[in-house]
Amino acid sequence: MAGNRSTLLFDATQRLLRRGAFPHLKRIIAKTHPADLAHLLGRFDEDQQVQLFGLLTDLEARAQVLAELGDEDAGTILQRIPRAQAVEILREMDNDDVADLLGALPEAVSQELLAQMTGEDSFEVEGLLRYSEDTAGGIMTPEFVGLPETATVGQAIELVRHKRDVEMAFYVYVVNSLGQLVGVLSLRKLVVSDDGTLLKDVMEPGVVSVRTDTDQEEVARIVARYNLLAIPVVDDRNTLLGIVTVDDVIDVLKDEATEDILKMAGAGQELVDSASVGSSIRTRWPWLMVAFFAEILGVVVVAPFGAPLEAHYYMAFFIPIIIAMGGNVGTQSATIIVRSLATGHLIPREVREAYWRELRVALLLGVIYGALAGGAGWILSGWSPGFGITVAVSMVAAMIIAVTVGALLPLFFARIRIDPAVATGPFVTSAVDVLGLLSYFLIASVILSARS
Amino acid sequence: MAGNRSTLLFDATQRLLRRGAFPHLKRIIAKTHPADLAHLLGRFDEDQQVQLFGLLTDLEARAQVLAELGDEDAGTILQRIPRAQAVEILREMDNDDVADLLGALPEAVSQELLAQMTGEDSFEVEGLLRYSEDTAGGIMTPEFVGLPETATVGQAIELVRHKRDVEMAFYVYVVNSLGQLVGVLSLRKLVVSDDGTLLKDVMEPGVVSVRTDTDQEEVARIVARYNLLAIPVVDDRNTLLGIVTVDDVIDVLKDEATEDILKMAGAGQELVDSASVGSSIRTRWPWLMVAFFAEILGVVVVAPFGAPLEAHYYMAFFIPIIIAMGGNVGTQSATIIVRSLATGHLIPREVREAYWRELRVALLLGVIYGALAGGAGWILSGWSPGFGITVAVSMVAAMIIAVTVGALLPLFFARIRIDPAVATGPFVTSAVDVLGLLSYFLIASVILSARS
Repeated sequence: MAGNRSTLLFDATQRLLRRGAFPHLKRIIAKTHPADLAHLLGRFDEDQQVQLFGLLTDLEARAQVLAELGDEDAGTILQRIPRAQAVEILREMDNDDVADLLGALPEAVSQELLAQMTGEDSFEVEGLLRYSEDTAGGIMTPEFVGLPETATVGQAIELVRHKRDVEMAFYVYVVNSLGQLVGVLSLRKLVVSDDGTLLKDVMEPGVVSVRTDTDQEEVARIVARYNLLAIPVVDDRNTLLGIVTVDDVIDVLKDEATEDILKMAGAGQELVDSASVGSSIRTRWPWLMVAFFAEILGVVVVAPFGAPLEAHYYMAFFIPIIIAMGGNVGTQSATIIVRSLATGHLIPREVREAYWRELRVALLLGVIYGALAGGAGWILSGWSPGFGITVAVSMVAAMIIAVTVGALLPLFFARIRIDPAVATGPFVTSAVDVLGLLSYFLIASVILSARS
Repeated sequence: MAGNRSTLLFDATQRLLRRGAFPHLKRIIAKTHPADLAHLLGRFDEDQQVQLFGLLTDLEARAQVLAELGDEDAGTILQRIPRAQAVEILREMDNDDVADLLGALPEAVSQELLAQMTGEDSFEVEGLLRYSEDTAGGIMTPEFVGLPETATVGQAIELVRHKRDVEMAFYVYVVNSLGQLVGVLSLRKLVVSDDGTLLKDVMEPGVVSVRTDTDQEEVARIVARYNLLAIPVVDDRNTLLGIVTVDDVIDVLKDEATEDILKMAGAGQELVDSASVGSSIRTRWPWLMVAFFAEILGVVVVAPFGAPLEAHYYMAFFIPIIIAMGGNVGTQSATIIVRSLATGHLIPREVREAYWRELRVALLLGVIYGALAGGAGWILSGWSPGFGITVAVSMVAAMIIAVTVGALLPLFFARIRIDPAVATGPFVTSAVDVLGLLSYFLIASVILSARS
């Protein structure tokens, strides 16, 4: 649904809700795709969400809406509708989605719901809840088509026909007598093979798989690299436990991109839908605090070297341009390095080469902008050549400092296994501010006092 | 293939290449998955790429490697191998990949190759080359399974069996007598239906489709929202022309995320693999130039208000902290707004609400950090209360300016249909620097001159 239609739907729903035109609303909701409904609900407040969700009567649609909604919103709705209804919906949902949802609820509520689910489903969900949510285990579904290597193509087709609850059955996985993954077969291959053929004679051996503890970003990378529609998940003995489907991989890619972008600006890890000022400040203050103390430290460190300022107070006007140009170049370096690491364009051992390139870039840019800024300094200081030189040299120094911090900080973070994305933004600019400013005053003391 | 194994393969290949152990290399290459080979080649220089590619003899694998390599690297290889071989490989590749590849080659070369391809393939490729590369038309493949609504399930299965060159045939599309898209059927549904049933009786009507000129980001958003494996592409008369498969959508999502991140830092749009300093500077200087002139403008604008500095030269030391805190808060706001717009969390009409939230955040943060910084200013100026107040008020002002610029600039860019991602980074920080600095000096003139 394009942006326009989605806005029209929102407007209509809001109007009808305000007027209390429930029969009309109910008809609209019944006709809307569950994915669009989830998107729509996300734009209303809690009470309205519960109200609108109540107007949806089709059980399958209810399950799909909850699966597509963010876990937080879905959890709220689930807690506010009657328990019996909640259990009914959970039974209808795919078990990997149920596990995600229950994992986000208060322990007591999720235990209660799980107890009422009973049967195979609750057993599977409990199994899934064991895995950390950012791993293959946490995003896999245990519902797949797996068959022994001695089964025939005909038997496999029969199984696909009858396994109704299997999510996107586009591959049939083949296991040996120990339940270990030995091969894979596309549904397509199955359709074009003779009924009597044994699976082991038509399967592709050497199937790519991941372990339950593989990080979800790595899972996404592998699925993307090999153009897969699903990837099998195995334990450390190669026993097949579940599959991760491509639609979940897409969600991972989207979330990770947002997370990286926000982290780089020191603005939390998740977009907060609500207009809550409190939660916005909570996600933002930690980096600001780090930046604040770094900058205060800068004031304390630089102040003793402030002597040149008394004679040359116009030095102050060039502080912003020197540290800003450094900050910009440093942020560029950090961003390029962080993104190269994240996409696999750069591996940690190519570090020296990457830093060397950044250093040459900084030198060249420093000379260009140093000359320009130095010229401006010379003019604006009333033709003081010493001040022009001070500004020019300080610009070169600030840029070299900036790329050094910008390139090496993320690489250092990667080495100590902290996500390099946090090393950009406020971190780089604060360091460049303090070091760039210090070098500006030191250079000024040397050049200006030598000449005066 | 995990990072470690991929590094081992790179090391081994490099060693064998240096020693000229070609038979051994050839064996290794024959055993490696084309996707891994593409990744491997990407890490060698041009000459080595051509050399290694020459060791790969299997035609299908050669085609897959070129399809997986970036268009630039693939184009280089294609131009350096004998023309006859190049044509042979292109014939083996999927036509959407051929079109991408030829689109990146010099016009003369691509015309020559196209002329030699002949037949249905070259016709299809020429058709695809008409579409702009960032649209559904540019990423679609014309190879899909389409059948009239009067065909039977049995006929459809027969077609799927024999259409060898169809990419990922997981859906069968149903068209009416005018070639217009009227429904869709999953391969799964086909397998579980009776052979004699008419397609129109089992198909899903109301299939989600995109137009040839739909932006690729929008295509990706729709595929992600409805959890599709492929989406049909139609013209303005709803005639079915091709499909976009989920593997291409994943590539779009990855590229767009990288593009957004780099744009936000003013560091170009694409990661450059090579260690070329020249290309790195070319992508980075435009934003730096904008920032430079904005900052120089700042110097010129602020200098006339510099009077308070002569009596209070320590004012200079607080310039960095005031503009840095403003810059950080502004970058956070800009990042949150840009990402919210990109992911559909925010629509332009919710602007006022979003800005109002940012403004309250800025006021609160301004009061907190203003108090802290003001206290520091009071102490470090030798207990001058006027200076403490100046710093505190300036901090609040800088933060309000910062969120205003940070939130409204991307929204303004979105309105005039420029990608809001370019409005962050250098743009926001320069504006905040200049305005923040100006307000600092104005506030200082008022408060400090009133008290002295």
